[in-house]
Amino acid sequence: MASVDERIKELQDKIKALKVAKQDASKEVEEMKALKAQQSKDKKDGPAGFQLKVPKGTIDHKPAAALLRKKIFATLEGIFAKHGGEVIDTPVFELKEILAGKYGEDSKLIYDLQDQGGELCSLRYDLTVPFARYLAMNGVTSMKRYHIAKVYRRDQPVMSKGRMREFYQCDFDIAGTYDPMVPDAEILYILIEALTALDVGEFTIKLNHRKILDGIFELAGVPADKTRAISSAVDKLDKLPWADVKNEMTVEKGLDEAVADRIGEYVGLKGKGREVLAKLQADEKLNAIASAKEGLADMALLFDYLEHAFGVLDKISFDMSLARGLDYYTGIIYEAIVEGSAPPAAAAAASGAAAPAKGKKAAKGANVNEDGVDESTVGVGSIAAGGRYDNLVNMFAEAAGSKRDKVPCVGVSIGVERVYAILEQRRRAEAAKPREKETEVFILSLGKEGLLPERMKLARKLWEAGIKAEYQYKAKPKAERQWAQAADDQVRYVAILAPAELEKGVVRIKEQGVERAAGADNGEEVSLDNVVEYLKARLR
Amino acid sequence: MASVDERIKELQDKIKALKVAKQDASKEVEEMKALKAQQSKDKKDGPAGFQLKVPKGTIDHKPAAALLRKKIFATLEGIFAKHGGEVIDTPVFELKEILAGKYGEDSKLIYDLQDQGGELCSLRYDLTVPFARYLAMNGVTSMKRYHIAKVYRRDQPVMSKGRMREFYQCDFDIAGTYDPMVPDAEILYILIEALTALDVGEFTIKLNHRKILDGIFELAGVPADKTRAISSAVDKLDKLPWADVKNEMTVEKGLDEAVADRIGEYVGLKGKGREVLAKLQADEKLNAIASAKEGLADMALLFDYLEHAFGVLDKISFDMSLARGLDYYTGIIYEAIVEGSAPPAAAAAASGAAAPAKGKKAAKGANVNEDGVDESTVGVGSIAAGGRYDNLVNMFAEAAGSKRDKVPCVGVSIGVERVYAILEQRRRAEAAKPREKETEVFILSLGKEGLLPERMKLARKLWEAGIKAEYQYKAKPKAERQWAQAADDQVRYVAILAPAELEKGVVRIKEQGVERAAGADNGEEVSLDNVVEYLKARLR
Repeated sequence: MASVDERIKELQDKIKALKVAKQDASKEVEEMKALKAQQSKDKKDGPAGFQLKVPKGTIDHKPAAALLRKKIFATLEGIFAKHGGEVIDTPVFELKEILAGKYGEDSKLIYDLQDQGGELCSLRYDLTVPFARYLAMNGVTSMKRYHIAKVYRRDQPVMSKGRMREFYQCDFDIAGTYDPMVPDAEILYILIEALTALDVGEFTIKLNHRKILDGIFELAGVPADKTRAISSAVDKLDKLPWADVKNEMTVEKGLDEAVADRIGEYVGLKGKGREVLAKLQADEKLNAIASAKEGLADMALLFDYLEHAFGVLDKISFDMSLARGLDYYTGIIYEAIVEGSAPPAAAAAASGAAAPAKGKKAAKGANVNEDGVDESTVGVGSIAAGGRYDNLVNMFAEAAGSKRDKVPCVGVSIGVERVYAILEQRRRAEAAKPREKETEVFILSLGKEGLLPERMKLARKLWEAGIKAEYQYKAKPKAERQWAQAADDQVRYVAILAPAELEKGVVRIKEQGVERAAGADNGEEVSLDNVVEYLKARLR
Repeated sequence: MASVDERIKELQDKIKALKVAKQDASKEVEEMKALKAQQSKDKKDGPAGFQLKVPKGTIDHKPAAALLRKKIFATLEGIFAKHGGEVIDTPVFELKEILAGKYGEDSKLIYDLQDQGGELCSLRYDLTVPFARYLAMNGVTSMKRYHIAKVYRRDQPVMSKGRMREFYQCDFDIAGTYDPMVPDAEILYILIEALTALDVGEFTIKLNHRKILDGIFELAGVPADKTRAISSAVDKLDKLPWADVKNEMTVEKGLDEAVADRIGEYVGLKGKGREVLAKLQADEKLNAIASAKEGLADMALLFDYLEHAFGVLDKISFDMSLARGLDYYTGIIYEAIVEGSAPPAAAAAASGAAAPAKGKKAAKGANVNEDGVDESTVGVGSIAAGGRYDNLVNMFAEAAGSKRDKVPCVGVSIGVERVYAILEQRRRAEAAKPREKETEVFILSLGKEGLLPERMKLARKLWEAGIKAEYQYKAKPKAERQWAQAADDQVRYVAILAPAELEKGVVRIKEQGVERAAGADNGEEVSLDNVVEYLKARLR
């Protein structure tokens, strides 16, 4: 109880001082009341001084989960490095003003650090803004970079749906002025390569282009100031029927019905292959709009690269209903959808999905999409997303008063938490107990001597050869306890030390989890001189 | 300028309120002056709205630095996994009360999150307290875990000395009730293995035991309430002469001179091998003190394991002057010292090191040791540290009101930033330009066609084979630009596509950075069908 009492005393003193200064002490009073209430509750409940828990919306990644995440990261890092990616590692907090004005109404979800004197800082909300800040600050005009790190959003957590306040993002971006669609094609190739390597199941990349979408809005007659609001309504077409979306456009957002109908003629178009592209290219009215014409030329070139050079066009679906929420996209936009990743609750929650939570938006890669629909509640889950953003870096450079050339960027963010959920779900379905450590050899002793120094010596021999080995930290461990530990940890080989064998200079090696005729397997006798070679040959 | 104006207004208001309360506003005044100075500088420089920078005491790890750190982490992770280590990944912030009362007067260095409604949280200060919280919260009574992550201290940063507000720690700990000194011996073995693998240069592990130290204080007649203060004075013996330390004990801390002299007879003892141990074992008066006797028995057993089973006793120096600052150590304590890691400024700063900064303490692994001496300014740098702490986990369990068995722990924290500094310094000395990416093959085209689709196709072929390959994102890149990029990025192989060769179905492969007779190297012609095999054979 001491620390609560101390804190109360501290607060009382503080309140006294504040009263002298005639300042408002309501926050401190409130905190003191809460602490006092907790204290009297604790007195009733028992001697508990505080709860042992992690902050709301965060979790400890326990060993099996942390190991699986590490494997996901290693797979992605391998792919990113293969494409010349460089890694940068930025601070977990940025100056508050760096994040200001980048996330619209979501800015309220930013975690601020307390003002303890000095600069005002906030925890990073995504990895894109720190990347743009890095480029602008260092005057870097071209870079391929990847960054895998945690980001922070003070959102209402729904842990069962994987919506957390601390979660990993995994971004690959290409910055620089290049020929059209060359980096864009490679980003899409990388995304396809990554999802294939992660083995998340069948997936499709939904692809669209902001300039074509804007061209359609222009052609349909959407007033310029309504473009983004109408765009966000269009983006809901994967969850809502056209009638509902049209209703949002006309009733909620005040669009003319005739304008909405003209939009409706286009945004239903989608499909794999070149059919949608061909149809739009043949549309003379649309091609008369400059922005649409540019977007269509981009798409034609991109399709050529994806089909003829990279051979991955079959993964792409041109989808005119994909709009994405973030304002900063200026070119192609995309989202990867895993077909088999609908969570069990999808059907039950389908009706709920029609009522977007108020004011929720999210950047690329989060579970909650930009119109507030938590995609883990709908039939098809987005597992990665991104697009081209040609102006963000310059926003920083300009705001800081330095005049620089444009630094166009295209990037993708892979939803690691979603990938993890899919792989973990599959593992559970297979009912396999996950490994928590990678130990390859468990050294045990038989007989009452315990043979601790001998176990240590053998362990050292194996460690020096790079073999992962453990033994029990007991001078005289029980045989059954040692076997149980080897089995629990799913260690493949057990090295058995016993006085009789040691005298002969041998150790018995037994492979675990291998079915053999009863009594037929007491392991193989291996000379201590050859044991490293013997095990290495079997482990590698 | 708006945000600076706002901040100044905010500070002025705050200062006004503070003056009413007759409090000291010097810190705020100072900050305001700095902001005003910056503002008038900005006005001269141009229309800057804010500074593009990272928060004070933090840095961006740029590609070459991030890559070197990744290699350090991979080396350590490989060693930890070899010893059965499991990884856990805890949130970057903890409930404020979890950290409260753990760091003594250093608690003022803890970063708090702003109270935005909900729980009060703080950024983690080290990885040990989150580990203890994890064990207590989950009722885990035995575990080997490692954790490599950033920790946060709102200290006065000295970037040139590597003292930062955000920095990596890298901890390995063994929790559980085992036979004496068995996990302790393995932790020391791991530390030696790690420093050897990291190739930091010659090093020594200074080793002592809290119980022996406490026994000496008891024997000398130190009052129980002065034990930790006297212990902290002893710990300065590696930087200060005995006369200064004695002065601190007697004048500053009020110890009897005779008592100090009796301490002085012991704390000068140090050395490799078993000499110090033998001398203390023969000391009848010391062995009459129960705690000293226990500590000496521990050390004798540990020395046996280290010498006979692990063969690493030559790295250990029994050093009675090592005391370490943290209160929670209960058994062996140790610090690894790299002999060649004195920074260039060491000599110049030596006199400064004799005047400890007021009120500075640090947990294991930081550059600033527990008595406030920044070890980067002295001749020999501590690169890792740790010890046994048998009561910390129970502090949590008891505070939360749950009665649990003891969970004794022993652990080590490797100072990654210091390791990085040593390796980086060596690299600079060798004047090698560090690689920022791992690209293995650069594909370039000769001739005015540019051959973009052909370069893409070849890249895809190499990527599919796991080869790291890049090409320029230009339809018709200039030859010299392509060669320059390959050279800048230190890519080992260049694959040259040219119309004449392509017609024959071949590509020329040229190895970079290899001296050959002038004109003798236009590369080797390789069939496009065999190019993957050809490169794989040379790269692996």
